[in-house]
Amino acid sequence: MARAPATTRRRRTGSRSARRGLAAPASKAKRLKRIGIVDTSFSRYDMASAAIDELRKQGEGFAVERYTVPGIKDLAAGARILFDRGCDLVMALGMVGRQPVDKDCALAADFGLQAVQARVGKHILGVMVHEEEAKDEAELAGLFDRRTREHAVNAYDLLFRPAAIRARAGTGQREGFADAGPLQGTRP
Amino acid sequence: MARAPATTRRRRTGSRSARRGLAAPASKAKRLKRIGIVDTSFSRYDMASAAIDELRKQGEGFAVERYTVPGIKDLAAGARILFDRGCDLVMALGMVGRQPVDKDCALAADFGLQAVQARVGKHILGVMVHEEEAKDEAELAGLFDRRTREHAVNAYDLLFRPAAIRARAGTGQREGFADAGPLQGTRP
Amino acid sequence: MARAPATTRRRRTGSRSARRGLAAPASKAKRLKRIGIVDTSFSRYDMASAAIDELRKQGEGFAVERYTVPGIKDLAAGARILFDRGCDLVMALGMVGRQPVDKDCALAADFGLQAVQARVGKHILGVMVHEEEAKDEAELAGLFDRRTREHAVNAYDLLFRPAAIRARAGTGQREGFADAGPLQGTRP
Amino acid sequence: MARAPATTRRRRTGSRSARRGLAAPASKAKRLKRIGIVDTSFSRYDMASAAIDELRKQGEGFAVERYTVPGIKDLAAGARILFDRGCDLVMALGMVGRQPVDKDCALAADFGLQAVQARVGKHILGVMVHEEEAKDEAELAGLFDRRTREHAVNAYDLLFRPAAIRARAGTGQREGFADAGPLQGTRP
Amino acid sequence: MARAPATTRRRRTGSRSARRGLAAPASKAKRLKRIGIVDTSFSRYDMASAAIDELRKQGEGFAVERYTVPGIKDLAAGARILFDRGCDLVMALGMVGRQPVDKDCALAADFGLQAVQARVGKHILGVMVHEEEAKDEAELAGLFDRRTREHAVNAYDLLFRPAAIRARAGTGQREGFADAGPLQGTRP
Repeated sequence: MARAPATTRRRRTGSRSARRGLAAPASKAKRLKRIGIVDTSFSRYDMASAAIDELRKQGEGFAVERYTVPGIKDLAAGARILFDRGCDLVMALGMVGRQPVDKDCALAADFGLQAVQARVGKHILGVMVHEEEAKDEAELAGLFDRRTREHAVNAYDLLFRPAAIRARAGTGQREGFADAGPLQGTRP
Repeated sequence: MARAPATTRRRRTGSRSARRGLAAPASKAKRLKRIGIVDTSFSRYDMASAAIDELRKQGEGFAVERYTVPGIKDLAAGARILFDRGCDLVMALGMVGRQPVDKDCALAADFGLQAVQARVGKHILGVMVHEEEAKDEAELAGLFDRRTREHAVNAYDLLFRPAAIRARAGTGQREGFADAGPLQGTRP
Repeated sequence: MARAPATTRRRRTGSRSARRGLAAPASKAKRLKRIGIVDTSFSRYDMASAAIDELRKQGEGFAVERYTVPGIKDLAAGARILFDRGCDLVMALGMVGRQPVDKDCALAADFGLQAVQARVGKHILGVMVHEEEAKDEAELAGLFDRRTREHAVNAYDLLFRPAAIRARAGTGQREGFADAGPLQGTRP
Repeated sequence: MARAPATTRRRRTGSRSARRGLAAPASKAKRLKRIGIVDTSFSRYDMASAAIDELRKQGEGFAVERYTVPGIKDLAAGARILFDRGCDLVMALGMVGRQPVDKDCALAADFGLQAVQARVGKHILGVMVHEEEAKDEAELAGLFDRRTREHAVNAYDLLFRPAAIRARAGTGQREGFADAGPLQGTRP
Repeated sequence: MARAPATTRRRRTGSRSARRGLAAPASKAKRLKRIGIVDTSFSRYDMASAAIDELRKQGEGFAVERYTVPGIKDLAAGARILFDRGCDLVMALGMVGRQPVDKDCALAADFGLQAVQARVGKHILGVMVHEEEAKDEAELAGLFDRRTREHAVNAYDLLFRPAAIRARAGTGQREGFADAGPLQGTRP
């Protein structure tokens, strides 16, 4: 879910105050939500720290449960374990290599993530960065950071600000790159 | 499920009165049905609005539950959540990008949708538009609109007018394009 | 499960009396079996009518429950719904288009059919015709008809004549085309 | 799981007395085990007879439950039905054709077999022969026979002689062809 | 999950004393954990022995349950059986051949492993070596050994030293080869 769009738009992540208007006040929450973060030792970027940092910028009302597994094919079991520990939503963070075998691994990993979601009935937001998506390590690091943060906003919105993500429906969001935007002529 | 057919036929969507003959009167319904709509922020067209608008043109007897998720791989969990909220059928609306990785995403998404349906025993009508199906943005927008609306008719028929969709069995319907029609010589 | 075989053999479908020897008498059946038929509006041939007609030629002891869905990816949910209505076996009838995307659709559809069967523990006989299997519409219509009818015989045999299908084990049956037959020298 | 290895080794199948040393005496078995055999009418070789014949050569303590289905995509439901009838292990015997569509069928079939095993927690030993694995019909028949028999030994060992199959761990067994053997220098 | 990285780093496996600092003392464990090892007779290397040897080097507090199956498509059922016997985690050890059909087998095997994990909620660490990953048998044997051992460390860490694997999060670990390491400039 990431490719170069035609036009650059405003980034979704950012300061917490800028988003306060849409946020449900934490004081109204019945209980603290639990957000699970499962990441891998295979990844070449510390995605979990980026996700947790961004989540905390978005607001309050949640605790983070973090868990590290070896590779992307272990994410589904990790997510299931986090749900069993009481998480309401899990972010599954991983990196996909360049080789054909890695693409089959990614399909197997996705299969597992879908199977767990179908069973548990809660979201696992998969954040996958493919090693060949950027031209050098610095750009790749930037992509890891941005995509992870933008999905952290999605995670927060799914739990606390459904109106905010609904407002983005059909608008061509692209996590990690500039947004594609809505098709020309479809928005007034 | 959409490609250019040999001949153009009458479109299925349209005014509500034209279809009244086949509709089950809402007054006979035991309870209001619930139709879930899950769409994405990735899509470049507001498919949910088109679906809801068309559903309302078809008749009464239902309430809509709407939910937005980031991308197509999140549709299955979204649909499962809508079933857990009492929906009788879910329309899952999404856009598939041009790259090979997007096709794998679509397969993973479909896998999840099948897994949820197998578990819940209710329909998720997947409406997917591939970015490369049209030659420009205006045509693509038209395709998004038409395919979504024609599947909204399918959704309504599955719940309220099974005889109407049965009457279309084996007739080569193509949502979003002109219908292919039945094979030559197979219908009197 | 259909390609041109080396030699042409006697067709399996046909008059009911010719098969009576192997049929379990309907009078011995504990209760009427229910055979579900789920077909699609996407298909360009009325497969359900062919299936029902052939089933009735095979014998008695069953009732048919028919259900139409939009496309092949909706067959699994349709089959699950038919099992929930009490069916003992379901025939899932569909057509697969020419494009690469259609092949992915078929894989997703098959996945769903397998998932439902694994869960329910009853057969869904998938009857799929690929649009490119025949050179023109007339031949394609013939293929639709024959393959559907031969699988209707399979369905009837699985429920009522297990000895009949066992007698065909390892004999290279090809639904819709002439049979491939057993390997040379392996049958006396 | 079968291709031409570098070196030819002793075949695993054979006379019952030769294996008696490793077999658990049938008299110690708490109850008769049930081995299910599901095969297809699509296959061009009578795999079930070969499997049953070889199982009986291996020893006692089991009964065979046999069941025939149309094609490989029906094997998973067939296996599930055999488990529901009390089988402890199922051999699923099928043939895969030459065409790309057959490879997708095989993947769908395997998917179903995995789904049933995940659910039931018992082994389904899939024995698949691809039509293009041999250069002519006689050789293909030989491959069908040998692979099926060698997997029958595996089935018997999983139920009655776990020490025997453990002794083959990591030794490059190839059912149907000569074994590949362990990597050079890894066994004393 | 293994390809040649740019730089060589220190290997993870090694003497037990070197890791003692991070290990949870066995005396605090409520009960002995059970680690399942399922391997295959298809593999050309004795992966199970390497895994067990390395696990024992890592520390105490666990018992090993070992089980051998024919090939990688049998690993999922084997793992499920080991979970049913009380295992807390399973290592699934297998070899993937060179042919296209082997890659489909690997996908089917992975599918099964994911399905079991989704159902059971415990980890199956899949350790797969592809026959073409090394240039000769000696190098391949070395790869089998190293990858298996490094995943044995992962297994031990998941059960006993979660802080140790968390410390490797995002650091580009590559089991069987030198690690890729974190992206340049992302770690101080």
